[in-house]
Amino acid sequence: MNYEAFFKSELATLKEDGRYRIFAELERKAGAFPAARQFFGEQTRPVTVWCSNDYLGMGQHPKVLEAMRETLDRCGAGAGGTRNISGTTHSHVLLEAELADLHGKEAALLFTSGYVSNWAALGTLGARLPGCVILSDALNHASMIEGIRHSRAEVHKFEHNSPEDLDRRLSLLDPDRPKLVAFESVYSMDGDIAPIAEILDVCEKHKAMSYLDEVHGVGLYGPRGGGVAEREGLMDRLTVIEGTLGKAFGVMGGYIAASAALCDFVRSFASGFIFTTALPPALAAGATASIRHLKTSQMERARHRDRVAQVRRRLDAIGIPTLDNPSHIIPIMVGDAHKCKRISDWLLENHGIYVQPINYPTVPVGTERLRLTPSPVHTDGDVDRLVKALSEIWSQCELARRAMAA
Amino acid sequence: MNYEAFFKSELATLKEDGRYRIFAELERKAGAFPAARQFFGEQTRPVTVWCSNDYLGMGQHPKVLEAMRETLDRCGAGAGGTRNISGTTHSHVLLEAELADLHGKEAALLFTSGYVSNWAALGTLGARLPGCVILSDALNHASMIEGIRHSRAEVHKFEHNSPEDLDRRLSLLDPDRPKLVAFESVYSMDGDIAPIAEILDVCEKHKAMSYLDEVHGVGLYGPRGGGVAEREGLMDRLTVIEGTLGKAFGVMGGYIAASAALCDFVRSFASGFIFTTALPPALAAGATASIRHLKTSQMERARHRDRVAQVRRRLDAIGIPTLDNPSHIIPIMVGDAHKCKRISDWLLENHGIYVQPINYPTVPVGTERLRLTPSPVHTDGDVDRLVKALSEIWSQCELARRAMAA
Ligand SMILES: Cc1ncc(COP(=O)(O)O)c(C=O)c1O
Ligand SMILES: Cc1ncc(COP(=O)(O)O)c(C=O)c1O
Repeated sequence: MNYEAFFKSELATLKEDGRYRIFAELERKAGAFPAARQFFGEQTRPVTVWCSNDYLGMGQHPKVLEAMRETLDRCGAGAGGTRNISGTTHSHVLLEAELADLHGKEAALLFTSGYVSNWAALGTLGARLPGCVILSDALNHASMIEGIRHSRAEVHKFEHNSPEDLDRRLSLLDPDRPKLVAFESVYSMDGDIAPIAEILDVCEKHKAMSYLDEVHGVGLYGPRGGGVAEREGLMDRLTVIEGTLGKAFGVMGGYIAASAALCDFVRSFASGFIFTTALPPALAAGATASIRHLKTSQMERARHRDRVAQVRRRLDAIGIPTLDNPSHIIPIMVGDAHKCKRISDWLLENHGIYVQPINYPTVPVGTERLRLTPSPVHTDGDVDRLVKALSEIWSQCELARRAMAA
Repeated sequence: MNYEAFFKSELATLKEDGRYRIFAELERKAGAFPAARQFFGEQTRPVTVWCSNDYLGMGQHPKVLEAMRETLDRCGAGAGGTRNISGTTHSHVLLEAELADLHGKEAALLFTSGYVSNWAALGTLGARLPGCVILSDALNHASMIEGIRHSRAEVHKFEHNSPEDLDRRLSLLDPDRPKLVAFESVYSMDGDIAPIAEILDVCEKHKAMSYLDEVHGVGLYGPRGGGVAEREGLMDRLTVIEGTLGKAFGVMGGYIAASAALCDFVRSFASGFIFTTALPPALAAGATASIRHLKTSQMERARHRDRVAQVRRRLDAIGIPTLDNPSHIIPIMVGDAHKCKRISDWLLENHGIYVQPINYPTVPVGTERLRLTPSPVHTDGDVDRLVKALSEIWSQCELARRAMAA
C-alpha cells in the first residue's frame, strides 16, 4: 500500500469533479465587517463578505468584544482543563444559566461547538436509552447524522419536513420503545423551515422525545432570539433544543437546553463532553454578552429581515434564480460545480464580492449554489454592488434567468 | 418509557458508586495563576490549582494575551463560518504553518479541539483507506477510541506500550492491507511514556502508518517544544503527529501535522473538520504566540522539570504513594472513589488546595487517584503547603504510606 499515492489520487479525483475546496484566506476588520481583506501570500485586496454565518455581525459588537477583552485580561487565555478537571469557570456557569433562560429550560450544557453538541448529545442519548430508535429528518446536518451513527441506535430517516411520514414510521414501532425525533428548524442550505408544531404533535402522539437543532435559528428568530421555536411558542414542548454560539451569536461553542436530569445525564456520560478541554472563559463571556444583548435588542433582527427582503426583491426584479424560502438565507441556484466556482471567482476578482461556491457534499450534485447571507451590517451600497455584479455575470455568461417580476 | 425517570435513576446509580462528578466552579486570576477563586453561589474563596493542564502557565503569558487582545480588537470575536465558507482567516493559515514547522512536517491541519482532531483524523483515515486495519494501544484516549470506532475499520488493541505485542499482531495481518498504528507519547493518567522508537521500528517493518498523540507532550518536551518525539529525534519517522493547543500551549484547539497530501485528504473528507465553525482568529493568534515563544524559550520547561522533581522528592520523603513515571504528571494513588473524593474535599475546604479526584471511567476502578500537575508558576510556598496538607490528611485518615525514603 502506497499511502501517499492513495491520498494524492483521491485528491486528483476531487479536482476533476470540481469538488476540491479552495479556502479563501480572509481577515475581517472588526467594526467594518462585512469588509475584510483577502490574502494571496503577502498581498491582500479588500472584499465584502456575503456568505458569513455571523448573521447579525455580533462578532464585532462592542459589548461582545468588551466582555471578551475583560475576561481575557482578568482570567487568561484557556480554561486549562476539562470541565471536570479544573476547567469549569464562573463564566461557563453563567453562560449555561443564560442559555437555560433563553430557552425556558431547567438547564443547559455547553460543548466546544455546535457540531460536538449534536454529535455528543445524540450519540449519548441514542446509545444509552435501552432499545432507543431515532427518527431523523432526511436532510439533517452532518453533525446529527454522525452522532446518530455513532450511537448505533436503530435509525429511520423520515421524509424531509414531513410530519405525515414521521407519523407513519412511528406507528410501525413498538409503542414501549424509547424514541427520539431529531430535526432542524432552519435548514441552512435551502433556508426552509420545519413545521415544528406538526412534528411535535406527532412526537407527543407517539411519546417520542423531540430534539431540535436551532443552530440557524437562535439569535435570529423569536422576541428574545430563542429561535424559531420561541417565535412559534413551542419551546416548552421540545425535549431538547440544540444551538450554536458560533453563528448569530458571533463567537464559538455549542449547547443543548433541556431538563436538568437530561443535561446532567449527557454531562455524565458523553465522551465528547467529558474528555476535552473546556471553552476559554473569554469565549463563554463573549457569548453570554451576545445572548443578553439579543434578548432585548430588536434592532439587529429587524434590520436583518429588512436587508434579506431587500436583497430578495432586487434579485427577483432582475430574474436571478433564487430558491424561495421563509428564512434569512438566499440560495442562488447554479446547478453545476464548475460554473458555481467560476462565478464565485469572477465576483471576487472583478468586484471584491466574496460568496463561497457551495458544492457537493454540502448540497446534492446538480443543486450547486451561491448562498447569500445578508446581514444588518450590509449597507445599501453593498447591496447595489452585489446586485449589479450578479446581473453582469448572469448576462455575460448567458445564465438562465427566471421570468422577471412584473 | 418514562424518560425523566430513566435519566434520574441512572444518575442515582452514579451517585451511589461515587462516580457522580461535581465540577469545581473556578475563576483563574491572570498573572496570579495557580491562584484562583472558587465560587459557591455568590460566595468565593481563594484556592491554589494543582490539577490544571495549563502545564506551563502559558494561559497567562503576556505574549499570548497580547496576541489574543490584538487580534480580538482587530478582527473581532468569532470566525463567522466553517473553514470553507468564510471561516479561514490569515491567523489560521499562520498557525498551521507554525505547527507544520514545529513538527518538521510539510503541513498541519487545525481542528476545534484535540478531541475533534483525533476523532476526525482517525475516523477519516480508518474509514477511507480501503480495508484499513487499526492497531490501537490498549490505553488510548477516549477521543482516539471514538474516532477508531467511528471509522468502522477493523481494529486490534495491542498491549499498552508493547512493541512486541504490536509486532505479533501486525505479523498476523495481510501484508498488503493498509495499517495504522495509533498511540500516545505521554499517557496522561499514569504519566508513563511510550517506547516510540521501538514502536516505529515495528511500524516500519510492517509498512504501517504511525499516528502519535502528543497532546501531553507538545510544548513540554524537545528543544523547541515539539514533544517527546522531538526530544528523541523521531518526528520524521512518524506519519501523523497529533496535538492540542489547550494544554501546555494554554489556549484551545487541536491539530495534526503530516504530509501535505495526508492533511489535504483529511481536510477534504473529515466531517468533523468540514461541518463546523472555525476557531476564533484570536485563539489561533494566541496559540501561535505560545508555540513561537516555547520554540526558543527553555525557561518554562526547565523550571517545570525542577518543580516536578521537587514535588516528587518531597512526597517520596514522607511516603505519599505516587505512581513512578518519567513524565511531569504525579499521580497520588488512593484506590477508592469515595476516599479520593473525601481527600480532595478536605484539601479544598481546609487548605484551599484544589486537586480534582480522578475516578472511573477516566481511570480503572481501584486505581482512583489525585493527579498533581506542578507547574513553573507554583512557588516554593505552594509546594510546602501542598506537602504539609497531604501529610496531615494521610496521618489523620491513616492512609497507607510507602516505605519512607532514607
Ligand atoms: C444545522 C447545523 N447544526 C450544527 C452545526 C455545527 O455548529 P458549529 O458550527 O457550532 O459546530 C452547523 C454548522 O456548522 C449546522 O449547519
Ligand atoms: C491523550 C489525549 N488526547 C486528546 C485529548 C483531547 O484534547 P483537547 O482537550 O484539546 O480536546 C486529551 C485531553 O483532553 C488527551 O488527554
